[in-house]
Amino acid sequence: MVQLIKKKRDGQSHSREEIIEIIEGFVKGDIPDYQISAWLMAVLWQGLNEDETAWLTEAMMNSGEVIDLSEIPGIIVDKHSTGGVGDKTTLVLAPLVSSVGVHVAKMSGRGLGHTGGTLDKLESIEGFKVDMSPQAFIERVKNHGIAICSQNAQLVPGDKKLYALRDVTGTIDNISLIASSIMSKKLACGADAIVIDLKVGDGAFMKNLESAELLAETMISTANRMGRKLVAIVTDMNNPLGNAIGNSLELKEAMDTLLGEGPDDLTELCLTLGSQMLMLAERVDNLEKGRELLLESIKNGSAIQKFYELVESQGGNLEMVKHPEKLPSTTFSYDYRSSQSGYVQSIFAQEIGLAAVSLGAGRETKDSAIDFGAGIMLLAKPGDKVEKGDVLMRLYANDKAKFEIANLHLDRAIIFSNEKPEKSPLIIKTIQ
Amino acid sequence: MVQLIKKKRDGQSHSREEIIEIIEGFVKGDIPDYQISAWLMAVLWQGLNEDETAWLTEAMMNSGEVIDLSEIPGIIVDKHSTGGVGDKTTLVLAPLVSSVGVHVAKMSGRGLGHTGGTLDKLESIEGFKVDMSPQAFIERVKNHGIAICSQNAQLVPGDKKLYALRDVTGTIDNISLIASSIMSKKLACGADAIVIDLKVGDGAFMKNLESAELLAETMISTANRMGRKLVAIVTDMNNPLGNAIGNSLELKEAMDTLLGEGPDDLTELCLTLGSQMLMLAERVDNLEKGRELLLESIKNGSAIQKFYELVESQGGNLEMVKHPEKLPSTTFSYDYRSSQSGYVQSIFAQEIGLAAVSLGAGRETKDSAIDFGAGIMLLAKPGDKVEKGDVLMRLYANDKAKFEIANLHLDRAIIFSNEKPEKSPLIIKTIQ
Repeated sequence: MVQLIKKKRDGQSHSREEIIEIIEGFVKGDIPDYQISAWLMAVLWQGLNEDETAWLTEAMMNSGEVIDLSEIPGIIVDKHSTGGVGDKTTLVLAPLVSSVGVHVAKMSGRGLGHTGGTLDKLESIEGFKVDMSPQAFIERVKNHGIAICSQNAQLVPGDKKLYALRDVTGTIDNISLIASSIMSKKLACGADAIVIDLKVGDGAFMKNLESAELLAETMISTANRMGRKLVAIVTDMNNPLGNAIGNSLELKEAMDTLLGEGPDDLTELCLTLGSQMLMLAERVDNLEKGRELLLESIKNGSAIQKFYELVESQGGNLEMVKHPEKLPSTTFSYDYRSSQSGYVQSIFAQEIGLAAVSLGAGRETKDSAIDFGAGIMLLAKPGDKVEKGDVLMRLYANDKAKFEIANLHLDRAIIFSNEKPEKSPLIIKTIQ
Repeated sequence: MVQLIKKKRDGQSHSREEIIEIIEGFVKGDIPDYQISAWLMAVLWQGLNEDETAWLTEAMMNSGEVIDLSEIPGIIVDKHSTGGVGDKTTLVLAPLVSSVGVHVAKMSGRGLGHTGGTLDKLESIEGFKVDMSPQAFIERVKNHGIAICSQNAQLVPGDKKLYALRDVTGTIDNISLIASSIMSKKLACGADAIVIDLKVGDGAFMKNLESAELLAETMISTANRMGRKLVAIVTDMNNPLGNAIGNSLELKEAMDTLLGEGPDDLTELCLTLGSQMLMLAERVDNLEKGRELLLESIKNGSAIQKFYELVESQGGNLEMVKHPEKLPSTTFSYDYRSSQSGYVQSIFAQEIGLAAVSLGAGRETKDSAIDFGAGIMLLAKPGDKVEKGDVLMRLYANDKAKFEIANLHLDRAIIFSNEKPEKSPLIIKTIQ
C-alpha cells in the first residue's frame, strides 16, 4: 500500500488491479485507515483520471451486493438528486413516470442533517413498508410497475466506510471521489440509465456551475465506461423546492403536484427530469413528447392513481392519502411574520432545513425519531412583495418551545430587497 | 482537526498554536492516525513555510523531556550525521574536539538496517555503559569534558511516533518534515549549536545536491528561529567512509585515526567537521586555526588520551582499547577476490552495509543481537587498480555460511572501469 500511496502522490496513474486492491483491502480491513486517508489526500492532490474514476466506481459497486434487475422488462432508469431542502421530487416522479408505462425500481435513503429523505416522507403514511428483500422488490416492480424501498445495507458498504473516513480527513472535495460515491450506489441498485438532478448554489454541495459541470462530465464518462447512459440536469438550489418542508407536508404537496395543483417550481422540475427519464427509457424519442405524455397523465388522473397503487402495494393506509387531512399533523402552529416590507430576494435553503429539523421534522443524529407532522410551509417565495407583519411561513410542531429555536434559524434565512429581484431560472443546464 | 487538514490542503499557513495543537493531539492520542496521515499528505502537497517548520520542530521537541545542559560551561556543539555506512565519525570527533578543551555532550543512537550506530560500536568494549540518567551524563561531561550516552526514550516521543506513521503512509519525503525530525532531536539534547554532516549520493537519503542544499537551508532557518546556530557540511556518500565496516573493526579504525594513522577520507572529514565545531564553540576564530589545533592534539597524543579517559569514565575495559587485538574478533575470515582486472570505480555503500549486517555486524530487527567482531575491511578503494584474483575485501564472521550470503551483496557492490576514474571530492560544500 505504501507503494500505491507514493504512486498517486507522485502523480502517476493506477491500474484497474491497483484500484481494486485498495478498495478491497480497505473494505476487508486489511489496509488501515491511516494509509487510506493518506492515499485520499494524494488523490485530492493529483486527481484521478477518467479510467481510474470508473475503476474506483466499479470497485466500490462490487464491495457489496449488486441488484440484478434484468427480470424487469424495459430499460430501468434511476433518478438521483444531490440533495436539497424540500426536495420531494421522487414522490412525484416515480409514480408519474410509472404511470406512462416505464418501470420504476427506486431505492431511496433517509434524511440526515438539514435535508429530508424520501423514505421518511413515505413513512408518514401509516403502514407503508420500505424494507423488503431484493426479490420482493423486483416482484412488486413487475406487478405494479413501481416500488420504492430502502437501500439494502449490503449495497456498497465500501462507500459508507470511505465516506465516513473522507468526512473526518478533509478529503470530501474531489470530483472523482464524489462521482464514484454517487455512481457506485446507483449502479449497485441495478440502473441501466440515470438522470441526475445536480443542485448548484449556496445551499448545495456544488457551489458553482463550473464544478457542477465538471462533476456531470465525470459522471457521464464513468457511466459510459461502465456501459450506462447518464444525463445531468443542473438546477438551482439557492431556494427550497416547492413550499412544503417536513414529511407529511411534503407528501401532501407531492400529491397536489400529481393532481396538477403543485407549486410551479416543483412541477417544472418533475416534468424536466421525467421527460429525460422517458427519453432514456426509450419510451419517447423527443423531450416534448415526453412532457406531453406526463402532463396528460396528470390531467387524466393516471399519475395520482399510480401513486395510490404504490401506497396500497406497499401496505400503506390508502384512506390517509386519499384524505390528506388524516396524515400526521401537529398540535401547534405558529405564524412567522415579516420583520420588514419589501421583496423577498432569496430564502436560504440550509437555514430553512435546519429550522425544520429543530421543529422535529428531521434527524439530528442517525437514531433520532422523526415527528412526521412537523415542518414549515412557505407562504412567500423569492420575488414576492411582502409588508411588515405579513405571514411568511407557517410552522408546525408538537412542542411550542421548538418555535423559538426554529425562529433563530428563520431570522437568518430570508434576504429582502427594495427592488423586485430578477428571477433566477430553476433549470440551469442539461449535460449529456 | 478536520478544519486544520482542510486549511493545509487549501494551501493556507498554520499558526504556531495550530501546529502545537496538531502535535500535542497526536502524541496524546487525541487525534487519530488517519487524520494525521491526511494532514501529512497535505503537507507534502502544499509544503510548510519556514515559520511553520520551526514551530513544528519546537512542538516536536516539547513532546517529551528536554535536556538542560546549562550547567556545563561553554557553548555545547552537537554533531549530527544523516547516516552512512562505515561512519565512525563520532568516535573520532567527540574525543578529538574534547581534547582541545571544548565540552562534548553527545547522545547517540543504535544501528538499524544497513547503517551502524555509535552506541553499538562503543559497546564492543567490554563494560562500556551507555545508559545513564541526564544528571549522571551532565556530571561526566563536567568532570571529563566528554560523555556519550544513549538517547533517552523520554526525548521527542512525538518524532518516533510521527516517523513510524510517515514510513507507512508515503509521507517521508518532505524537507520540512525531515528537518524538523532531525532538529527536534538535536535540540531536545540541549545543543546550543549544531554541525550537520549532510550525506548526499546514491547511498544517502538525499540523492542530489539540490535537495541537500534545500534541507540545509531549511535546518539553518529553523535553528536561527530557535536561537541556535547551524552549519551543514555536504559530503559525498556514494562510497563507504574509511575502510572498516563493523563494530570493533570501526572502533579500531577510529582509534587509528585519533593516533594519526587513519584512512585519509575519515581523517579529512573529522578535521573538517571538527574545525567547524571549534568555530561554533568559539574556541577558535577561523577554520585553519581549528584544524591546526586538532592536528596538534592528534600528534601530541591528547586526542587518544581523551578517548581512553572516555572509555574509563564510562566503565569500559581500558586494556581492551590499549591492546585492540583484545577487542571482539571472529573465528573465521574470508577473502573476497576481484572477479576482473581494472580500476575500482565505485563501491555501493548500501550493499556493503547490507553485507556487513548479514555477517552479523548489524541488526535486521530492533531486537537482533549484534556480533561485535563481525564485519568487512575494504582493501581496495575507488581509484585503486586491481588485478583479477586480488583480495578486495576481508570478511569476518563466526559462521562460515554467512560469507555466502554476504557475497551475494558484494557481487553487486563494486563497479569496475578500464580507465582510472576521476576522484570525486568527499567534502562537497559548506552551507551556513
